[in-house]
Amino acid sequence: MVWFRSLIRFSVTKSSSSPSITPRTANPFGPYRSPTLSWLAAAAAFSSGPPSAAAAQEPPVMTPYAGLAPTKAGEKPRVVVLGSGWAGCRLMKELDTKTYDVVCVSPRNHMVFTPLLASTCVGTLEFRSVAEPIGRIQPAISREPGSYFFLAKCTGLDTDKHEVQCETVTDGPDTLEPWKFKISYDKLVIALGAEASTFGIHGVKEHAIFLREVYHAQEIRRKLLLNLMLSDVPGVSEAEKSRLLHCVVVGGGPTGVEFSGELSDFIMRDVHQRYAHVKNYIHVTLIEANEILSSFDDRLRHYATKQLTKSGVRLVRGVVKDVKDRKLILDDDTEVPYGLLVWSTGVGPSPFVKSLELPKAPGGRIGVDEWLRIPSVEDVFAIGDCSGFLESTGKPTLPALAQVAERQGKYLAGLLNKIGQDGGAFANSAKDMEFGEPFVYKHLGSMATIGRYKALVDLRQSKLNTDNLWYYNTTGGQRLISCWVPKLVHLAIGISNTRDELEEQILCGN
Amino acid sequence: MVWFRSLIRFSVTKSSSSPSITPRTANPFGPYRSPTLSWLAAAAAFSSGPPSAAAAQEPPVMTPYAGLAPTKAGEKPRVVVLGSGWAGCRLMKELDTKTYDVVCVSPRNHMVFTPLLASTCVGTLEFRSVAEPIGRIQPAISREPGSYFFLAKCTGLDTDKHEVQCETVTDGPDTLEPWKFKISYDKLVIALGAEASTFGIHGVKEHAIFLREVYHAQEIRRKLLLNLMLSDVPGVSEAEKSRLLHCVVVGGGPTGVEFSGELSDFIMRDVHQRYAHVKNYIHVTLIEANEILSSFDDRLRHYATKQLTKSGVRLVRGVVKDVKDRKLILDDDTEVPYGLLVWSTGVGPSPFVKSLELPKAPGGRIGVDEWLRIPSVEDVFAIGDCSGFLESTGKPTLPALAQVAERQGKYLAGLLNKIGQDGGAFANSAKDMEFGEPFVYKHLGSMATIGRYKALVDLRQSKLNTDNLWYYNTTGGQRLISCWVPKLVHLAIGISNTRDELEEQILCGN
Repeated sequence: MVWFRSLIRFSVTKSSSSPSITPRTANPFGPYRSPTLSWLAAAAAFSSGPPSAAAAQEPPVMTPYAGLAPTKAGEKPRVVVLGSGWAGCRLMKELDTKTYDVVCVSPRNHMVFTPLLASTCVGTLEFRSVAEPIGRIQPAISREPGSYFFLAKCTGLDTDKHEVQCETVTDGPDTLEPWKFKISYDKLVIALGAEASTFGIHGVKEHAIFLREVYHAQEIRRKLLLNLMLSDVPGVSEAEKSRLLHCVVVGGGPTGVEFSGELSDFIMRDVHQRYAHVKNYIHVTLIEANEILSSFDDRLRHYATKQLTKSGVRLVRGVVKDVKDRKLILDDDTEVPYGLLVWSTGVGPSPFVKSLELPKAPGGRIGVDEWLRIPSVEDVFAIGDCSGFLESTGKPTLPALAQVAERQGKYLAGLLNKIGQDGGAFANSAKDMEFGEPFVYKHLGSMATIGRYKALVDLRQSKLNTDNLWYYNTTGGQRLISCWVPKLVHLAIGISNTRDELEEQILCGN
Repeated sequence: MVWFRSLIRFSVTKSSSSPSITPRTANPFGPYRSPTLSWLAAAAAFSSGPPSAAAAQEPPVMTPYAGLAPTKAGEKPRVVVLGSGWAGCRLMKELDTKTYDVVCVSPRNHMVFTPLLASTCVGTLEFRSVAEPIGRIQPAISREPGSYFFLAKCTGLDTDKHEVQCETVTDGPDTLEPWKFKISYDKLVIALGAEASTFGIHGVKEHAIFLREVYHAQEIRRKLLLNLMLSDVPGVSEAEKSRLLHCVVVGGGPTGVEFSGELSDFIMRDVHQRYAHVKNYIHVTLIEANEILSSFDDRLRHYATKQLTKSGVRLVRGVVKDVKDRKLILDDDTEVPYGLLVWSTGVGPSPFVKSLELPKAPGGRIGVDEWLRIPSVEDVFAIGDCSGFLESTGKPTLPALAQVAERQGKYLAGLLNKIGQDGGAFANSAKDMEFGEPFVYKHLGSMATIGRYKALVDLRQSKLNTDNLWYYNTTGGQRLISCWVPKLVHLAIGISNTRDELEEQILCGN
C-alpha cells in the first residue's frame, strides 16, 4: 500500500516545498532500496544523480562467463538437453524429474508441431495451435530450483570437462550483445535437429522462405496477403500482377505438397471470395527435380498428382540453379517470376553439428550406437535428425521424420530413467553399466495432407499391414483416406503412439 | 490437366533428346503464353533466354502515375475513405453500396478493436479476436468491380480537382519502392485518426512501445517473454534481472491503466506458475504526471487506485523528461531502469493532418461544421480523432474516443446515403442541398478495465442516469461493476449502440 499512499500524498502536496512531503523533489524510487522492499534492493546502484554518476556506478550486467557448476553429492544430477524439437521435447516430457534436474538450451522456447505448420500459413489453423511452450511440456523446468530453460544456442562442447558453452539468442528488433555462459552436465543429450538444405544454390537464403518454424509460416502469410493487396493497386501492369501472385514451391516432399495443397484451398475458398478483383492472377507452381512424394507408394503418388492438378497446382519437373529477387532460374535457363517462394527440399546437418569433433554417421550426422549414445565419450547421447547410426552398427540411417525423433526421445528418456534408478545418473558413473534393450525403429506409416481436407496415409511398412480389419478399401497395404483436419491431428499424433492407439485413431479418423 | 500430363510425360521421357517430348530443354512455362491459358499470357515478356535479354524485355511494373479516373455518367459515384479506424469502418459498413462505390485507402487492412488491445499483450485475448478485415466489414470492397481497398497512405489532396494522391505502404522485411497513384473522388471522407503524443520527449519513439496497433501488442508480448527468459540466464546480475523485468507504463489514461491491470494479472496468473525462478523480480510501475483516469469520477479513480495497488502496480507521480535505451529520466533527475516501456500519454494530429491546407479546429484537428463537412471545399468530410468542430460552430471539441468516431461514421453514412438518394452523389452536385439534421453527440458513458476481471463504468453523462432501474448499487450516477471479459466485450460494443441495447447489455453484464 506504500505506493498507493504515495500517490495520494503526491496529489495533495503537489505545491508544497518541504522535501519530506514533496516526493517530486526526492527520489520516488528511494523506498525500494530499503531491505523490506527487496525487489529493487539489489538494484541499489540505480542512481538518482546525474547520468554520468549513474554510469560510473552501474553494475556489470553479467558476471564474467558464469554458469551452472558441476553438481555435487546431495544435489540432483543434471541432464542437459540441446534443442527443443520432437526428439528433445519427448525426452524431456518423459524424464523422471525426481531423479534428474532438466536443463534445456534452445533458441526456441516452444516445440512446433511441424506436420501442421503448412496449415497455419493460410489460416486453416492458428499459429498458437501448432506451438507448445517447453514449460508446459515439462513443468519442472519452470518450477524446480535446479531445472531451467535457456533461450540460447550451444557454441561449444567439452566432453572431458562434461561442459557445454552457450550464448543467449536475441535476434529481432532489439538484438542484444549475446551473453555467454557454461553449463556442466551429468548427461548430455544432443537433439539439435537439422537445417533446411539449399544445395549451395545462390540466393535461396536471401529470397526464399523455409517452412520449419512458426515465424516462417507468419512470414508466408504476411507476404501472401501483402502481394494480394499490392496486385490490386491501380496501374500495376498485368505482368507484375501475375508475378506478385505467383506462389512457387520448390521441393515435392510432404511439406511442399502439403503447403501447395493448403495454398490452392486458400485460393479457392478465400481469394475467390475476398480478393475477387485479382482471383484470376493467383497461381501455385510446385517445382520438383524428381518425383513428388518419392517416399510414398506409386499409386498414392498418382492420386496426389491428380488431386493437386485438379486443385489448380501446376507441377513442374525442374532443377533450380539460381534464385534472384523476383524470379528463379531453372537449369535449362527458364526464368520463373515469383511473388512468394517457399523452399522445402529436405534437410541436412547444421554448421554446428558439422563442427563437432565427434564420430560421424553417413550424411554428416552425429554417429551413435544402438543405445543412441556416442560411444567414444562418456555420458553423451544424440537423438533426432542430428544423429545417425554409426556404420559399425550395421544399421541404416533413419529418415528425418518427427516419428523417428519422437520415438528416440521416448526411448532415451526410458534409458536415462533406468540408469538413474540403477545409480548411474551422475557424470562418469555409468561406465560399466548394462544398458539393456537397444533402440529399434518400427515405421508405423507415412501421412501427407494434399488439400481439400484429403490426405494420403501409407502404411505399407507398418505391422498394421497384416491386420486386414481396417482395410476394407485397401490396395496392397496402402490406402487413401479422406478426413477432416481435426481428425488428421489425431492421426498425426497417433502415428507416434502405440500400435493400439494408432489403430483406434485410424478407426476414428474414418 | 495439362500440367499433370506434362509431369507424367517428364518422368517417362527424361532421357529423350527430342524437344517435342523433353520439356526440360524447352520452356515449361511456354504453354502459359497461349491465349487459352490466360493467367500468364499477360506476362509474355517473361523470358526463357539469358537474364540480360530478359531484363531488356521486362515490362515496367507500373504505368506512370496511374489511378482511378473521375467517374462518368452511367458509373456509380465514388466515395473515397481515408483511414480504417472506428470512424472510417463504421461509415463504410453503413454506406449504401447500391448507390456508391467505396474505395478505402489505409496502411492497415483491418480495423482494430482498440479497447481490447491491452488484453492481447499478455494472451488474455488472441490478436485475431481484436482485428476485423476491412473486406469483412464491407464485403462490396472485395467484390464490386468499382470498390477497392488500397494498402497505401494518402500523400496529398487536391480539393479543386477532387483528387487524392497516394502511395503504397510495404514496411517490413521486404520494403519496396512505394508505387504512386491518384484517385478521383465524388465524396471524400477523411478519417485518418490521430498519432500517439510524445510531447517531443527525446527517445520515446526509439525505445518505447505504443499501444495502438496489433503489431504493438505483438511487440510487447514478444519483449515481455524475451526478458523473462533472459533474466533467467546464469550469471545475470541481480540489478540486471530487476531492470529486465521492470515494466514501466507512462500515462494513466484508460489504455495505461488497462495495460497495467492486464500485466499484473499476467504476473499473478502466469509468471508465478511458469517463470517461478524470476517471479520476485517482475514489477509494474505506472507513471502519470497528474491523476490516473482523470476523465472518470473521483470515487471511481480511488477505487481504481486501490485495486491496482492491491494487484502490485506501483503508481508514481512524475514527468518523464528523457528516455534512454534501458532507463528513463524523470524531471527531478530520478533514473528509472526498465526492461519494457509502454507509452500511452494520449494522441494528437498526425504530420499529414497538420500539413493539410484546410481550416483547423482547436488542437490542430481538421475543422468541420455541424454536418461533419469541411465548409470551405466541396464534397469533403472529416470524422473521428482527426476532426473537430470549427470554432464558428460554437461546439466543443469532442474527446478522442472510439465512441465519438463510431457515432460520427454512422451519422455520415446516413447523410451520404440521403445525399445519394436525393441525386447529389456525384462531385459538385450537392452544392445547394439541404443536409437535414446536424450531428449531435451524446456521451453514453466511459469504461476502463483495471485487471482481475474488474472494470469501471462511468455513466454520469449518459441519459441512462435518469433511469434508476439498473442502479441498485449506484453512487450518484456512476457505479462499479465486476464482470468477465467476454461480457465486457458486449458492454464495450453496447456503449456505441442504441440506448435500449446498452441497457439490455448492462443488465446482461451483471
